[in-house]
Amino acid sequence: MALYVMKFGGSSVGDIERMKRVAKRIVEKKQEGHKCVVVVSAMGDTTDELIDQSKSLNENPPAREMDMLLTTGEQISVALLSMAIHQLGHQAMSMTGWQAGFRTDGTYGRARIVDIQSERVKNALQEGQIVIVAGFQGMSEVGEITTLGRGGSDTTAVALAAAIQADVCEIYTDVDGIYSTDPRIVNCARKLKEISYDEMLELAHLGAAVLHPRAVEYAKHNSVCLVVRSSFNYNEGTIVKEEATMEQGVVVSGIAYDKNVARISILGVADLPGVLAKVFGALANEHIDVDIIVQSGVLNGEADFSFTTALADCERAVSVIENIRGEVPYREVTSERDLVKISIVGAGMVSHPGVAAKMFDIISRTGVSIKMVSTSEIKVSCVVAADNLHDIIRALHTGYGLDTMETAFVGGPQDRR
Amino acid sequence: MALYVMKFGGSSVGDIERMKRVAKRIVEKKQEGHKCVVVVSAMGDTTDELIDQSKSLNENPPAREMDMLLTTGEQISVALLSMAIHQLGHQAMSMTGWQAGFRTDGTYGRARIVDIQSERVKNALQEGQIVIVAGFQGMSEVGEITTLGRGGSDTTAVALAAAIQADVCEIYTDVDGIYSTDPRIVNCARKLKEISYDEMLELAHLGAAVLHPRAVEYAKHNSVCLVVRSSFNYNEGTIVKEEATMEQGVVVSGIAYDKNVARISILGVADLPGVLAKVFGALANEHIDVDIIVQSGVLNGEADFSFTTALADCERAVSVIENIRGEVPYREVTSERDLVKISIVGAGMVSHPGVAAKMFDIISRTGVSIKMVSTSEIKVSCVVAADNLHDIIRALHTGYGLDTMETAFVGGPQDRR
Repeated sequence: MALYVMKFGGSSVGDIERMKRVAKRIVEKKQEGHKCVVVVSAMGDTTDELIDQSKSLNENPPAREMDMLLTTGEQISVALLSMAIHQLGHQAMSMTGWQAGFRTDGTYGRARIVDIQSERVKNALQEGQIVIVAGFQGMSEVGEITTLGRGGSDTTAVALAAAIQADVCEIYTDVDGIYSTDPRIVNCARKLKEISYDEMLELAHLGAAVLHPRAVEYAKHNSVCLVVRSSFNYNEGTIVKEEATMEQGVVVSGIAYDKNVARISILGVADLPGVLAKVFGALANEHIDVDIIVQSGVLNGEADFSFTTALADCERAVSVIENIRGEVPYREVTSERDLVKISIVGAGMVSHPGVAAKMFDIISRTGVSIKMVSTSEIKVSCVVAADNLHDIIRALHTGYGLDTMETAFVGGPQDRR
Repeated sequence: MALYVMKFGGSSVGDIERMKRVAKRIVEKKQEGHKCVVVVSAMGDTTDELIDQSKSLNENPPAREMDMLLTTGEQISVALLSMAIHQLGHQAMSMTGWQAGFRTDGTYGRARIVDIQSERVKNALQEGQIVIVAGFQGMSEVGEITTLGRGGSDTTAVALAAAIQADVCEIYTDVDGIYSTDPRIVNCARKLKEISYDEMLELAHLGAAVLHPRAVEYAKHNSVCLVVRSSFNYNEGTIVKEEATMEQGVVVSGIAYDKNVARISILGVADLPGVLAKVFGALANEHIDVDIIVQSGVLNGEADFSFTTALADCERAVSVIENIRGEVPYREVTSERDLVKISIVGAGMVSHPGVAAKMFDIISRTGVSIKMVSTSEIKVSCVVAADNLHDIIRALHTGYGLDTMETAFVGGPQDRR
């Protein structure tokens, strides 16, 4: 008998029929003799509908009231799912975030979990209940309702799994697991059997929307064994854990891409001390997230540099730069859209030199020029024009030998440098 | 400056436009210099839609989960109303039932208020906030979410008014106030300026659906001054308070009717000790509410008696009687529908003999026979065939001089016996 946390996202409980299917799935787990804690998101479009209603009353609603509003979505889900389980003849008890003991700080809209007082969940498990917890929400220390922000329900599941020392935290979603790349682009993309937290983190950050990076970080920090699997079939999913057992020989595990990229370039910046700090300080003050930053060498006392932001932040970022021209003299600021960031990820990279060079070579053979490069120990990212996305991904997938692997992470005769 | 509790029902906040109008109304009160606590119900059909969803998953959903589900309706209302007030440039803070300090017993679906810990509401008022409280809900002593059941939001408003010692508790609804009778039946029905708690209680119990009897009882017990008025106009409403100032000369203040009446008659009951206790004990065990009970005299060791129930309980009540035939021998049980209970209510009745006789006389002149009679100190009720409802109401309204009064409770030349 194991203790499971099972997380179902909004599309898994998108309507009454899906809700029934999820209930059946949970009951099957229970009937196998396991203890089950379930974390659920709001049904389908509920959250968007609530946001629409709020916008029709207030274009800029207070964050506190927004949290009060949005948390009802998950509360509806947990109550209905519990009813569906009762209908199947099993005991279930729904809980809001605060009832399940989620204590957070007071940052509405993106609160951080401070503590989980899990006695109530544990007691209900002890009574033989299936416990259904509302994802994405908690209560601040002064008793205000908060939400955890984006990826909140994944984080709820992982944090609860850590708090009650669950054996496994299963993330049910609409895909079978984590793939070596987007199967819509590469037909022969493979489902990975296992992946390490760090690789998953890079993939999560890079736009593989299956699992939120925050939840992966939390899982890594607390050594929670994650399984990503489909809520629509019984296929084995992908296990995310500390050290993926078969990964030793593998250099590149996955290829990710992100279309939500804009590049801003500042040309002819006077090479004065503190220039970079002023630019990125001003952007940070406006809550603009900057991803890749590239500075060229200094020539004649002037430097050029570029950085990327999300598309939605591009215009604002340009205004910020224009506004600080007094403090930071420069010749010109330009922005570019229609870009894509393509990344190769693999824990084995660190011990295999030449991986980046190979990536540049493969991309250059497709006739595309690389606009920016960024690297970490287990990742290489290139920003290129968006037009050639599919060609490049296919070439990389083939080039790193991912096409021909029987199963990901299992050795084969392919080139691995 | 006064402290107001303003309660808005589901139809008053039925859609976004109405929500905006309510926000404006509240802000006007605030701008007059008053402190405002607002109690809101779920928007329009929200509760019914949630019930429909639950029924599609479980025909008999657990009461605990039903409360978890339904309380989201009011939580959505308070958040949206707060946003609408912010949009008008005023500070507002929404609160769930548990946040506003409503502690209840653990009877899901119809919890009773045990205590109101109103510090949080008071503190928010102190800060200058308009406080928006979710009606109909509370939290049990073990932290479970409960609902107060039917009439819950009225009760929330009155109980909160008592707890924070509000000067007035205004119940905003879709009618202008309490009328001498149903204006749809009698064109010249008058809006009452004032009415006593006891009269209101009788009218509330008798089917004048404006104000829930439980809320009136709570108001009476705590001497909360109630005002019933329209959320769609600025007309003065009806004041409900201990002693209606101008009522001395008035015998009948209002005429109510209730079509939700079935009569069950048990004929030829053996006149044994404890027979009535057995019959009504058995009905109570099945949670069947009995209203009027009439027993005829005993003849040849046999008695006949009749009682009324709600229409929905009629069949069940007959089965209960059939099932106890072994213990309570009788000749026959019959039931009758298509009835109406018509009642005259007036605090002045107690000091004016002959009021009931006059009612019987007026009804008999319409050619209708009276099937049952029930009286209290301030009420006379007659059960008659439903066909003649309108004729009888009009005749009574005229007969007790309600047609010609300039304003209710203000003296005039009309007959008052």
